[in-house]
Amino acid sequence: MGLFRDAGKAYKPAPEVDLGAHSDEFYLHANVKAPRVAGLLVKIFVWILESPILGWIVLYMLKKDNLVQRLVSVAEIQEPPLFTATHSSEDISEQSVTPVKPNLSPAERVQEAASCLPPCLDSSSFSDSASQFKRPTIRDFFRAYKSGEPTPLEVARRFLAAAKETEDPKLHMAFFISYSHEDILRQAEESSRRYRRGTPISMMDGVLVAIKDEIDCMPYPTTGGTRWLHKVRPCIEDASCVKQLRSCGAILVGKTNMHELGAGASGINPHYGATRNPYDINKISGGSSSGSAAAVCAGLCPVALGVDGGGSVRMPAALCGVVGFKPTSGRLSNSGILPLNWTVGMPGILAATVEDALITYAAICDHLPFSQPTFLQWFNDSTIDIRNCCDQTLKMLSQHYGWKIVDVTVPEIEEMRLAHYVTIGSECTASLAPHLSKLDHAEIGWDARVALSVYGSFSSRDYLNAQRIRNRQMYFHKEIFKSADVIVTPTTGVTAYPLLSDAADTGELDYINGAALVRFSIAGNFLGLPAVTLLVGYDKGGLPIGLQFIGRPWSEATLLHLAFAMQTQCIKSYKRPKVFYDLLKKEQA
Amino acid sequence: MGLFRDAGKAYKPAPEVDLGAHSDEFYLHANVKAPRVAGLLVKIFVWILESPILGWIVLYMLKKDNLVQRLVSVAEIQEPPLFTATHSSEDISEQSVTPVKPNLSPAERVQEAASCLPPCLDSSSFSDSASQFKRPTIRDFFRAYKSGEPTPLEVARRFLAAAKETEDPKLHMAFFISYSHEDILRQAEESSRRYRRGTPISMMDGVLVAIKDEIDCMPYPTTGGTRWLHKVRPCIEDASCVKQLRSCGAILVGKTNMHELGAGASGINPHYGATRNPYDINKISGGSSSGSAAAVCAGLCPVALGVDGGGSVRMPAALCGVVGFKPTSGRLSNSGILPLNWTVGMPGILAATVEDALITYAAICDHLPFSQPTFLQWFNDSTIDIRNCCDQTLKMLSQHYGWKIVDVTVPEIEEMRLAHYVTIGSECTASLAPHLSKLDHAEIGWDARVALSVYGSFSSRDYLNAQRIRNRQMYFHKEIFKSADVIVTPTTGVTAYPLLSDAADTGELDYINGAALVRFSIAGNFLGLPAVTLLVGYDKGGLPIGLQFIGRPWSEATLLHLAFAMQTQCIKSYKRPKVFYDLLKKEQA
Repeated sequence: MGLFRDAGKAYKPAPEVDLGAHSDEFYLHANVKAPRVAGLLVKIFVWILESPILGWIVLYMLKKDNLVQRLVSVAEIQEPPLFTATHSSEDISEQSVTPVKPNLSPAERVQEAASCLPPCLDSSSFSDSASQFKRPTIRDFFRAYKSGEPTPLEVARRFLAAAKETEDPKLHMAFFISYSHEDILRQAEESSRRYRRGTPISMMDGVLVAIKDEIDCMPYPTTGGTRWLHKVRPCIEDASCVKQLRSCGAILVGKTNMHELGAGASGINPHYGATRNPYDINKISGGSSSGSAAAVCAGLCPVALGVDGGGSVRMPAALCGVVGFKPTSGRLSNSGILPLNWTVGMPGILAATVEDALITYAAICDHLPFSQPTFLQWFNDSTIDIRNCCDQTLKMLSQHYGWKIVDVTVPEIEEMRLAHYVTIGSECTASLAPHLSKLDHAEIGWDARVALSVYGSFSSRDYLNAQRIRNRQMYFHKEIFKSADVIVTPTTGVTAYPLLSDAADTGELDYINGAALVRFSIAGNFLGLPAVTLLVGYDKGGLPIGLQFIGRPWSEATLLHLAFAMQTQCIKSYKRPKVFYDLLKKEQA
Repeated sequence: MGLFRDAGKAYKPAPEVDLGAHSDEFYLHANVKAPRVAGLLVKIFVWILESPILGWIVLYMLKKDNLVQRLVSVAEIQEPPLFTATHSSEDISEQSVTPVKPNLSPAERVQEAASCLPPCLDSSSFSDSASQFKRPTIRDFFRAYKSGEPTPLEVARRFLAAAKETEDPKLHMAFFISYSHEDILRQAEESSRRYRRGTPISMMDGVLVAIKDEIDCMPYPTTGGTRWLHKVRPCIEDASCVKQLRSCGAILVGKTNMHELGAGASGINPHYGATRNPYDINKISGGSSSGSAAAVCAGLCPVALGVDGGGSVRMPAALCGVVGFKPTSGRLSNSGILPLNWTVGMPGILAATVEDALITYAAICDHLPFSQPTFLQWFNDSTIDIRNCCDQTLKMLSQHYGWKIVDVTVPEIEEMRLAHYVTIGSECTASLAPHLSKLDHAEIGWDARVALSVYGSFSSRDYLNAQRIRNRQMYFHKEIFKSADVIVTPTTGVTAYPLLSDAADTGELDYINGAALVRFSIAGNFLGLPAVTLLVGYDKGGLPIGLQFIGRPWSEATLLHLAFAMQTQCIKSYKRPKVFYDLLKKEQA
């Protein structure tokens, strides 16, 4: 049984196992030591098993004896579970979507996407007099780079200067966990050279993209916001989505900060600092993709990647007033994403505008996100204070576009939040436990330790019941989608709340605000539905308010089309964050 | 929180929930009572949580406070989990299979199947002089009924007489849990009338079919081998597979005995008796579909339905020397099957011959099971004593048909068995726990109580790790199937073992024999692979030895084709069980 208590079998990766006739794989005979028992002895055994404490101990020993403990419970297994969330065949794909030519490269898809952009997206429409504030978009960068003023190299230098400034103790924004001057400048030089030669790879060539530190991106370690995970799981190549962005010429500007292990929603990280909200540096940025949202908000890059397992892309996007987009579960590869959970998390896009989210989505997904919906009904299940702003926005859109709004009930919202919590906790435990058992707990942040304790306490019945609640919710949502294209909610129940100094070291346990933050995000993850958030207004303190569209499975095109239309109306009243850098302009803020 | 400890929310069925704007569904605000905590208090909280006993208690209280307990852990939920086993799109369907005409009725499918039967299946080939013993097949019954001698009514009367005889204390075979004279005779009269008019519905008209008491079949309760389950879960209509058999004119002759809750492999049931092996009534029949296998073996019906969640069709089939067939997971509807587990169990067919399994399969599945494989490789991973007989059979077939046999290694057999055990135990607990908590334990058999105690002890990590092992095994099997059509194994590691009198009341705990019985069955359930067992010989005591073919996902046609070819060779040496009734002959044994 090995020297250590609970030492589990460490399975070698499945492809390395020899399946030949003369394999040296050990044939383990069933290790059943139990003698046959019948009659009175069975009864006594039952009485012991069913007694509260003794029974637990005997069961523990039994499982150990049957090798369940070593071979299953505490084993180290590389592979994810076999089971994956399935959207049944009744989930029809979108109609009236531009057909995708097969086998396009990411750069060709970006080209195709750009050519599909509605004419009203042209930058002229953004620069009307009413627009108070506007972040440069991918197309702005592309246009500037082609004119040679500034070059990608100049923009990269401005990025590095701005990033440095945000690290100044008086700001201490904690956007990044790591970024390499050398690597960024090298990429920028190559991109500048391509523009000089008139051969940019795509519209994303030279565009700065930041990557959440939960996604593999060379040459950086992938910490997951921890001090230890990169030591036991080295990053050896780009994640699938990063690879595709790189092949479009994008400049990858480093790894953004995140809530430790994604196990919280505030973005307060005890090891790499609490990410501050550029609209108010004494407020949280939201999490777990805190750095990605805040960096886009502050103008450091038009686009960043995040990972959304419980609203972790959309929720910080809402709090920082940027676009957050999570496609349908299964649409993007999870390869190269930390396996913190298997069935609820996936990559998502944080961007300044829906236009940029569209282009980035085309780069990382083999599906062109354009559609012309012919019929619309709108639903609104929001019930809280941010509602006023969202209601107003909806009313405006309804008048402007003639969209029909119908009220419905999404039942069991709280049940779904708890079932999602059990799911993400169980999957995180199964994924990380082999590492955690070998770890000095001092390596782990205090609030993450609380989360891991709770996560580890769930039974298989807890997990399976959570999956049954998931099935019910899938049914409810399918019913609603029979007559509606999207469900509309506020993205969060509260705007960015204060960042208090006592949380810097220990993090904080603030389950009330935590629950309010994720309340509307859960369906996207738990049911794998695509969802997008964008800025529709500000609260009295000037903090961003996000509105969320949740779509049918595989309806990204419809979703982004609607979001684009909405942003076209809302963007005129966008306000500049207190911390903001316009990298296209020479003078810094 | 209700009057009772652990009282969980009882969810109403999802389709009954009102999703309208004015639904009376209660909107449950996030029940988060925890105040915000940071700094030293967080550290103290972590120390408490991470301490062995106190931590467990605090976590329990926390989960209760967060309603996880009531809304998820111990809730009563009707729906199965959302997640289902998926065979990825790389799993190609079979080639060279007779195309199925869409929307055929079960009777038309039986007709189609009969017309596809290879000529050598004609009864003449069975009646050569070498054949020592032969059970009447569906075609034998059909031919006899058409000739009017005997009629379905006469056969039904002989069945009732034989069934009564097997209940005699000197035999006490315990084949059935319930059967109704009235209902059987009514069906038989209707069938006889159809034959008299020359309008039988199909080849299965008047054919006797027994149904495992885990499958809903009117007018019987579905006990699952328990004394209580039918009281909390009334049977209100035929299961999907039963409905289709009924529509073919089959006479449903009642509910067969099974291991209580399917939680064991011996077929010893403390409430309805231990099913005895017709080859030797002092030996077990195997389980859990014990009654179905033994009834077919004893000639009481040519076909019976079972449910296979861990070999529960194939293993008793092997021990009783009949055919046991479990199609690919997902091929047959699980509707109307007791939800004892969700991801490993499914209906299967027990039949005297492969021909009968083919015809029955056509009746209950919208897929015609005929194929003409052009190329074959064979694998053999058997390692135990029954191996000699299986080896000999393979050698004979290899010579006769030119099949190519290649040795391979299927690694981690024992790991798979344990992971399957964790899976079936976890799913059984999640499914039954709401009932069990309200039940007088005296209602439950002693050995089932042991099983339920162990089942309830698994953590969500146990379950998820089991699903990861499942993923590894799927990989291994896919690799092997790249160059092979089937994997060949003995069906069981032991033949029927003795039935001892001390087990009658308490059942027995015999994990060594239990593990040996299911050893080769697991891949079929855990990976959802189709598999079939048939009789290939006898041990020194005259007890049957089964050989199993495991096929690629969705390869039922290939599998049955091979099984048919094999049985054509083996059937000549079949022996008559000690307890056997030939219902087509007037004189009883």
